[in-house]
Amino acid sequence: MPAPLRLGIAGLGTVGAGVMRLVQAEGALIAARAGRPVQVTAVTARDRNRNRDVDLSGCAWAESPVALATRPDIDVFVELIGGETGPARDAMFAALAAGKDVVTANKALLAHHGHAIATAAEAAGRTVRFEAAVAGGIPAIKALAEGLAGNRIRRVVGVMNGTCNYILTRMEEAGLPYEAVFEEARGLGYLEADPRLDVDGIDAAHKLSLLAALAFGTRVRFDAVQMEGIGRVRIEDIRHAGELGFRIKLLGVAQMTGRGLEQRMTPCLVPMASPLAQLRGGTNMVVLDGEASGPIALRGAGAGAGPTASAVLADVIDLARGNRYPMFGIPAAMLADPVPAVVAAPAPYYLRMDLLDRPGALARVATALADAGVSIDRMRQRAHEAQTAPVVIVTHRCAPDAIAHALAAFPATGVVMGEPVTIRIEAE
Amino acid sequence: MPAPLRLGIAGLGTVGAGVMRLVQAEGALIAARAGRPVQVTAVTARDRNRNRDVDLSGCAWAESPVALATRPDIDVFVELIGGETGPARDAMFAALAAGKDVVTANKALLAHHGHAIATAAEAAGRTVRFEAAVAGGIPAIKALAEGLAGNRIRRVVGVMNGTCNYILTRMEEAGLPYEAVFEEARGLGYLEADPRLDVDGIDAAHKLSLLAALAFGTRVRFDAVQMEGIGRVRIEDIRHAGELGFRIKLLGVAQMTGRGLEQRMTPCLVPMASPLAQLRGGTNMVVLDGEASGPIALRGAGAGAGPTASAVLADVIDLARGNRYPMFGIPAAMLADPVPAVVAAPAPYYLRMDLLDRPGALARVATALADAGVSIDRMRQRAHEAQTAPVVIVTHRCAPDAIAHALAAFPATGVVMGEPVTIRIEAE
Repeated sequence: MPAPLRLGIAGLGTVGAGVMRLVQAEGALIAARAGRPVQVTAVTARDRNRNRDVDLSGCAWAESPVALATRPDIDVFVELIGGETGPARDAMFAALAAGKDVVTANKALLAHHGHAIATAAEAAGRTVRFEAAVAGGIPAIKALAEGLAGNRIRRVVGVMNGTCNYILTRMEEAGLPYEAVFEEARGLGYLEADPRLDVDGIDAAHKLSLLAALAFGTRVRFDAVQMEGIGRVRIEDIRHAGELGFRIKLLGVAQMTGRGLEQRMTPCLVPMASPLAQLRGGTNMVVLDGEASGPIALRGAGAGAGPTASAVLADVIDLARGNRYPMFGIPAAMLADPVPAVVAAPAPYYLRMDLLDRPGALARVATALADAGVSIDRMRQRAHEAQTAPVVIVTHRCAPDAIAHALAAFPATGVVMGEPVTIRIEAE
Repeated sequence: MPAPLRLGIAGLGTVGAGVMRLVQAEGALIAARAGRPVQVTAVTARDRNRNRDVDLSGCAWAESPVALATRPDIDVFVELIGGETGPARDAMFAALAAGKDVVTANKALLAHHGHAIATAAEAAGRTVRFEAAVAGGIPAIKALAEGLAGNRIRRVVGVMNGTCNYILTRMEEAGLPYEAVFEEARGLGYLEADPRLDVDGIDAAHKLSLLAALAFGTRVRFDAVQMEGIGRVRIEDIRHAGELGFRIKLLGVAQMTGRGLEQRMTPCLVPMASPLAQLRGGTNMVVLDGEASGPIALRGAGAGAGPTASAVLADVIDLARGNRYPMFGIPAAMLADPVPAVVAAPAPYYLRMDLLDRPGALARVATALADAGVSIDRMRQRAHEAQTAPVVIVTHRCAPDAIAHALAAFPATGVVMGEPVTIRIEAE
């Protein structure tokens, strides 16, 4: 039997403990597939004495992530600490400098420092694998970097944050406002310690920026993701959207356009009958559209101990088998520094506004839209009791600029009250 | 720049020509990802003079597949001839004996000779990759053999034959009987030269047997797939199923049970709202249920020049990168010889029969079912004009044996006319 692949695991939270349990429970299966035994040689975590319901008797305990990362008795540093700075970052670079391969679930770290890490890895002749950083148990990174490697990628679309998806689903099903469901989710422990990571779309945007780098051969540009969280999604928009045959999802879209690299993580309307709309709770979906392959959709659990451990083990087994290539699919020096697209590609839009209930009000809005070059697909005025009437419009495909011009012209109509709501409509 | 990876392509039909075009169109992209140039050194096909709209000027022409497979100027033999015997098989073994890696789309060959091929490959220190053999452009083999390698696999479910899916979809949408749609599909060129490969479920069963071997670490046992084609699917069953909230799909299921390895490729009812039911035309879906990952669903085009070429290139790029492991995920000598399960796991069933329109007829049938241990979830008697009434029953989950016992007892009731129809109900 060849020599075992020796892992050092930093971080024994849900995912770290899940990896330990999986390695212990399926050792024989993993060894058969990996071509050699996989063992955990050493671990570290913040609190040595916490009860984790995991057998650590066979592992050495390292005093710090950096100490673990540089131990001579590990081959692969498994970074499951999280966070874009501090011990995770220090240990990542220390591991590479010490000649270790790295497996990580840390999307924040890679989104912020991906290019520096890829460069450091190549300088050290090592690689960094991060299947667990994106979409939990779904092998989305592998599908993109390997399964579709023969394709020019046209577009990546996905729902990649289970907490946001849970909140939006629950709002729709229970008819509850955002704030109520947010508190409910907090009570259930569904939110990160800093909930903005989830509900502001930051976590999902981290993932999107990694997929975009792989898809388009560009440096990670998390800073260039156009980001909008779900905090402004109103229950009435969920209802109106539903009546028009749409659902609201926090949707990530990345595409290379003539105007540069477009990366967006924003609430969007998607057709109710589409697979994206049917995702419930923590289920993620990533759609990879290759020129030769056409769209390939992947769906599965986006988080949790089991799914994330599955992704970590996939990377570990790849390393054991010798499946090695540069972190973002091509050598770091070849990764282009992308020009971020300032304006998104044209799309249909959903508009909601309150109109003064007076003759000619609708006509004024329609004229403002027409003057801006926005043509109307559907328009509905809802029943109302107040002096204003809620009006919902679905436009034909139009440039975001045109929508902005129309919005700018609304005040002068004298009939649009308050701030109109605009939500982009996307499809798989 | 490292030395190029040199391909020899046997077979220049739709797929072979698609691979040539993709290599030529995306040479730079492929080289960047593969870490070395990929070039087609030599080709062969049945007819040298056929116009294929592909530039062959840079390639040598080999006089036969075996001659191509053994050329010293190729590294990888790409077998796109098809067929389980003859030149494809001869060339496959010749290539391995000559120390070449092999990439193939030939599901029939692998389904029949998979174990011998895996053994020959290992003896030669080479490997055989076959992403293109299953589900077209979907990286299903990679997801299973690599992406979920940390998982014990519980179940594989999928729709894997686009032609059958087209026929069933068209029957439903146009309200046409099987025979009419079959002729239509033949006219459109959708059917294989031997249409039984498609409509009898043989092609899809080939694919299922390969997925099962990878999933469960067993030798390929195509002979043990329980197979039933779509030729007996009646338009009235599609209608009744629809009214009950189901669609009929040719569904593959493989699972390892206490009674052995179960492999089935048969028409099944699936819930209308499920992603499997929503597949249209040539779209395939494969659901891989791992113990740690939970179910992972993959969807995409199941055939065609582009998607299949994408799968071939994924394998080629893997080989160029050095991603090598045994053909079925573990060494051939470790593949278990599975005990085929004789009887399928319990499931709900759909039953349709014609009952004599006389008092007590339904009660007799219900009694026969109860006596056999089959409990009824729903029963509907349809409006009718003849002396017999069509009755449709959905059972609760029950053993297939129980259904068989009930069917055996029906003649004695004196009220069941003709042969009842039974179709299994499956879910993702």
